[in-house]
Amino acid sequence: MKIKVINPNTTWAMTAEIEECARAACGPGAFIEAVSPAMGPSSIESHYDEALSVPGILAEIMAGERDGADGYVIACFGDPGLDAARELAAGPVVAIAEAAMHYAAFLGRGFSIVTTLGRTCGRAADLVERYGMQRHCRGIHSCEIPVLDLDNNPDARKVITEACFDALDRDHSDVIVLGCAGMADLCRDLSEELGVPVVDGVTAGVTMVQSLVTLGLSTSAHNEFARPLPKVYTGMLAPFSL
Amino acid sequence: MKIKVINPNTTWAMTAEIEECARAACGPGAFIEAVSPAMGPSSIESHYDEALSVPGILAEIMAGERDGADGYVIACFGDPGLDAARELAAGPVVAIAEAAMHYAAFLGRGFSIVTTLGRTCGRAADLVERYGMQRHCRGIHSCEIPVLDLDNNPDARKVITEACFDALDRDHSDVIVLGCAGMADLCRDLSEELGVPVVDGVTAGVTMVQSLVTLGLSTSAHNEFARPLPKVYTGMLAPFSL
Amino acid sequence: MKIKVINPNTTWAMTAEIEECARAACGPGAFIEAVSPAMGPSSIESHYDEALSVPGILAEIMAGERDGADGYVIACFGDPGLDAARELAAGPVVAIAEAAMHYAAFLGRGFSIVTTLGRTCGRAADLVERYGMQRHCRGIHSCEIPVLDLDNNPDARKVITEACFDALDRDHSDVIVLGCAGMADLCRDLSEELGVPVVDGVTAGVTMVQSLVTLGLSTSAHNEFARPLPKVYTGMLAPFSL
Amino acid sequence: MKIKVINPNTTWAMTAEIEECARAACGPGAFIEAVSPAMGPSSIESHYDEALSVPGILAEIMAGERDGADGYVIACFGDPGLDAARELAAGPVVAIAEAAMHYAAFLGRGFSIVTTLGRTCGRAADLVERYGMQRHCRGIHSCEIPVLDLDNNPDARKVITEACFDALDRDHSDVIVLGCAGMADLCRDLSEELGVPVVDGVTAGVTMVQSLVTLGLSTSAHNEFARPLPKVYTGMLAPFSL
Amino acid sequence: MKIKVINPNTTWAMTAEIEECARAACGPGAFIEAVSPAMGPSSIESHYDEALSVPGILAEIMAGERDGADGYVIACFGDPGLDAARELAAGPVVAIAEAAMHYAAFLGRGFSIVTTLGRTCGRAADLVERYGMQRHCRGIHSCEIPVLDLDNNPDARKVITEACFDALDRDHSDVIVLGCAGMADLCRDLSEELGVPVVDGVTAGVTMVQSLVTLGLSTSAHNEFARPLPKVYTGMLAPFSL
Amino acid sequence: MKIKVINPNTTWAMTAEIEECARAACGPGAFIEAVSPAMGPSSIESHYDEALSVPGILAEIMAGERDGADGYVIACFGDPGLDAARELAAGPVVAIAEAAMHYAAFLGRGFSIVTTLGRTCGRAADLVERYGMQRHCRGIHSCEIPVLDLDNNPDARKVITEACFDALDRDHSDVIVLGCAGMADLCRDLSEELGVPVVDGVTAGVTMVQSLVTLGLSTSAHNEFARPLPKVYTGMLAPFSL
Repeated sequence: MKIKVINPNTTWAMTAEIEECARAACGPGAFIEAVSPAMGPSSIESHYDEALSVPGILAEIMAGERDGADGYVIACFGDPGLDAARELAAGPVVAIAEAAMHYAAFLGRGFSIVTTLGRTCGRAADLVERYGMQRHCRGIHSCEIPVLDLDNNPDARKVITEACFDALDRDHSDVIVLGCAGMADLCRDLSEELGVPVVDGVTAGVTMVQSLVTLGLSTSAHNEFARPLPKVYTGMLAPFSL
Repeated sequence: MKIKVINPNTTWAMTAEIEECARAACGPGAFIEAVSPAMGPSSIESHYDEALSVPGILAEIMAGERDGADGYVIACFGDPGLDAARELAAGPVVAIAEAAMHYAAFLGRGFSIVTTLGRTCGRAADLVERYGMQRHCRGIHSCEIPVLDLDNNPDARKVITEACFDALDRDHSDVIVLGCAGMADLCRDLSEELGVPVVDGVTAGVTMVQSLVTLGLSTSAHNEFARPLPKVYTGMLAPFSL
Repeated sequence: MKIKVINPNTTWAMTAEIEECARAACGPGAFIEAVSPAMGPSSIESHYDEALSVPGILAEIMAGERDGADGYVIACFGDPGLDAARELAAGPVVAIAEAAMHYAAFLGRGFSIVTTLGRTCGRAADLVERYGMQRHCRGIHSCEIPVLDLDNNPDARKVITEACFDALDRDHSDVIVLGCAGMADLCRDLSEELGVPVVDGVTAGVTMVQSLVTLGLSTSAHNEFARPLPKVYTGMLAPFSL
Repeated sequence: MKIKVINPNTTWAMTAEIEECARAACGPGAFIEAVSPAMGPSSIESHYDEALSVPGILAEIMAGERDGADGYVIACFGDPGLDAARELAAGPVVAIAEAAMHYAAFLGRGFSIVTTLGRTCGRAADLVERYGMQRHCRGIHSCEIPVLDLDNNPDARKVITEACFDALDRDHSDVIVLGCAGMADLCRDLSEELGVPVVDGVTAGVTMVQSLVTLGLSTSAHNEFARPLPKVYTGMLAPFSL
Repeated sequence: MKIKVINPNTTWAMTAEIEECARAACGPGAFIEAVSPAMGPSSIESHYDEALSVPGILAEIMAGERDGADGYVIACFGDPGLDAARELAAGPVVAIAEAAMHYAAFLGRGFSIVTTLGRTCGRAADLVERYGMQRHCRGIHSCEIPVLDLDNNPDARKVITEACFDALDRDHSDVIVLGCAGMADLCRDLSEELGVPVVDGVTAGVTMVQSLVTLGLSTSAHNEFARPLPKVYTGMLAPFSL
Repeated sequence: MKIKVINPNTTWAMTAEIEECARAACGPGAFIEAVSPAMGPSSIESHYDEALSVPGILAEIMAGERDGADGYVIACFGDPGLDAARELAAGPVVAIAEAAMHYAAFLGRGFSIVTTLGRTCGRAADLVERYGMQRHCRGIHSCEIPVLDLDNNPDARKVITEACFDALDRDHSDVIVLGCAGMADLCRDLSEELGVPVVDGVTAGVTMVQSLVTLGLSTSAHNEFARPLPKVYTGMLAPFSL
């Protein structure tokens, strides 16, 4: 089984970390490849960044189809391009906010999301609604550390830990969902320190897509997610013609 | 990894079938044991049946804890006793309607549930709300075949197939969720005939609980699902004292 | 008119208090009998306790049917076994959280629930949704006094009163719902002290079921709540065979 | 106990029928007085009719307060003037759609409303939302018989009965709520013919307000429903100055 | 184009201010006339006041129809009489809470409403639901200044400004909606001071109704909002007969 | 006032038609410019098409900012790129599904959407939720005519008219919303034939954005929709660097 993990930003150092976490999560018999698209923003912290990441993600899905990928993970907590990716791929496509929230729903009364910048909380709230998680999600909190500072900022771990404790207290929640692929490496330690389950999207996404492949389940091609109709795409690079 | 699958009714022929499906779904490295409780109804087709199945389910969870089970599946589409089971078990507990609906949410715009008797549709509707699946579930349909007739009734497969086609058409849905553990064996054939993904709860539940164990995730013991306070249980058999 | 009030726990001292409150609430022409089941937990403070209380409740409903009861009250704020009880009884069955919330909806913009232990708030929240009370219920608060300490703890009244004042203030609510049958005796005094309506479930439940009997209304037997189909119940005591 | 039933339209023949039904429903120890306001429309079949009925209803509430009424019923299925009436009355005020829907919620999985003209269904839908009955109400149906023809039209009973059967079938409902005070006299016969509980608002309203008076519960005066601030009312008849 | 703005209270000084704001907002080619009804309360701060304002509003709509008005604005934040007015008018009718909330929905993630007295917040909450604004409205706040003191109270501007800052902070909102026609004159200054868009209902209402007239759009007469059926209106002044 | 209308597909013949409708709708004092992006699909009928249209839309917004546009309309019923566009533009940005649904909410009890292909109905449903229109939208219907055939197919008008009649009947709706910018020219005739208001997104969008500019209202820059943080955009054409 070949799983392609797409980090929608173009920062390959982060892609390498994501690949490491993904491989650790992945059971035997599955091969993980993590990539960044050839085009797009260096990090995703606005609707604009997210919009510009999508063509690159879709190009990677198309390449994955040619290369025989069995499933895909979109590894940014804004879940960019998910619907379009599902139209293109024969196998299942899972996004990390989606996977993390679904797993968290099995673990307690309600979860809190702890993410990077406050300006991204709106997008997280949209996804909570989209996935039907209003009953399960009790709050969305930011720690105001930009995505690419998560590794460099020496206080990052401390700030995130405090944001998690504060979220559990204010939301009366019993599970934490980490709201950025760049936090994947903190997951296990945080869980021990907080005393509650902590769900990271990268490992969640990889495990979920593996499950779907194992179950023989993929996106329905019955109507909305059927392969797009072929048409003219003006002014775009070659890969986008179907 | 040791997964205990509890068929909440006391019909061991059905338990054997469930075990077979569960083992087929289960990857290497996991051992599946399927059981029926020592007490309870022969099938579950009413709120009364469901209520009477719960003490037996809980006794099996308690036995599983003593025996070192890593996770549990409650294999009846009414998901009986789920909250109480989560208080008792150290590892994750997954119920089959819950698992099937969560997987189905990854596969299309919306699913239809096809179940046995019309009188059980209300319970399915309650579960749809509980799991936040109102956006995803587009209809609940019964084929009016009792649980224990699924294997005996020579028309069962035909009636269920027609109910599925009808559901897809009326609900404008693109995924089918099978609403009874006794339909697990039909899953693959139905999917081919219908041309849409078909999700069976038994395989979904086993795969989901395996995923959670692999991810190191289990029910939060932070508040609501902490171990129950010890107290006197009058007039009950021994196993219920904590 | 004969109303059977079932205290789902096995603490008969509490049953006696409930009977006293119920009789005081009850108009002339109705006879109240309060009972505890022969089996079950001494108090209900977890999903596990609640699950184990249900068979005993159902046995009491079955006995009530033989004895000619006209209606039933399930007197625990978790409303255990309500759906199953409705399948068994010819007359109406009312649970106390259900009755209290419905009456409270007539009294103001929104109510706050004040209950015993924090770990039971999740169940109360589930019932708020089940009864469609999300618009009316503005908060659920615990005072962290266990059910059986309500009578013994000399600070109980003070702690509960403070929790009520705090709830009214934080929730901008104008009505209080007491979240435990054991608080029934505080209802009138609390209302005077708080200056807002306070609804107790025991008196609410008894009054509601009396109303339904008077109106000639009982559970519909049209489909879901029809009498359960007869079947084999393995390993259970005699009363559970229909 | 003195209960004042206000028929918001000015057709006294209908008021007399309402009084008869109300008295039959009412237990001993309560005195029922039914009135029509001095001003208003002869029947209520539009938002305009409803708006013009409100000042007359409020004048009757004010008169009731002077005369020592213990509680009030607003006997039109649009529940006109309910919030304002609650500000004026010391005792509880219950409207008939409100009471009927709350009682119906105790009786089954879901109810259908059968009312008079199609143009009033929107108002009924607004009330379903206001009372949190979206889970319980499965459909609103009109039989296209104007309010004042309910008694004269020889086919009325037949048309209404057919509309009820059709509603049960199409909505998969198990309870009927009658959507007009003028249908009160049909309630018992319809229930027998349909084989499901049928709830009429007039008897429901009278019983509900009696219950609230018995329980010592009335509208909270804590904030929103406190007595209105005195002010100048220009160009209106005397009774409206507080 | 002739737009009639109805201030539902009878304080003509406020009507004059509303007219001034409305004319300033209104583009060329539209003529604004602002009126108070001949009967009704001097200000609207309760459900009772609101109910008593409605007949006067409807009389003004009927007069406007005779005088050739092309559209109407109901200029009180409780949006009194809106449904009935739509049945009477050939042209569009817009109420100011409705218009303000719809415009605010285009401007950010979520708005806070800042209104006069706390007792009116319930009505605002009802309107938020009616207009489907639960996703957009993040809080309703009162500054406890009565409507007619907005102009006289020397601290009014300061208190309102502080309430707005507090609302933005507590609600994590990014837009303010002013909850009273009497605050229209503060709109522009507040927006500058707060640094976020501030929407006033009067200018919003006038602009919205002008848009609808320009687009040739008016209330559907297809069913619910068709002209009311003619009938007898007892005890009311002449204008109410259709 | 300068309004830039962006037709997200690259079919300039359709852009010219949109410009004509927009100019007809637009009052004096506003200048309309309609454009297609330099890159993107020839029509938008899938999530994939929509995703690929977004970079071109954003490039046009950036060009508009340099050219002094006062407001923008995104003229495709899927409302692509709306959030990102709002981050970039100083003036208001309105999308046509958004504008059409908001105007329709003022016109009746509920609207039906009639659109092109069935596979786009899911996106329309997502937008209904996003804009809080679940109460107002009663159904989404497709006529199975591709976008670019709307002008060529001689039966298009007939098929659309029948779909509208059918929608009004099945949904009990009283307003029609046209679900494609390519249907703008049919709006007035359809309204006459159907006897209900018909809202077209292009004229709605242009009128709405003009209103917002006149009111001095634009997207809040307070948090989520503040200008994106500058960062590196790899492999993209020049215009995307901020």
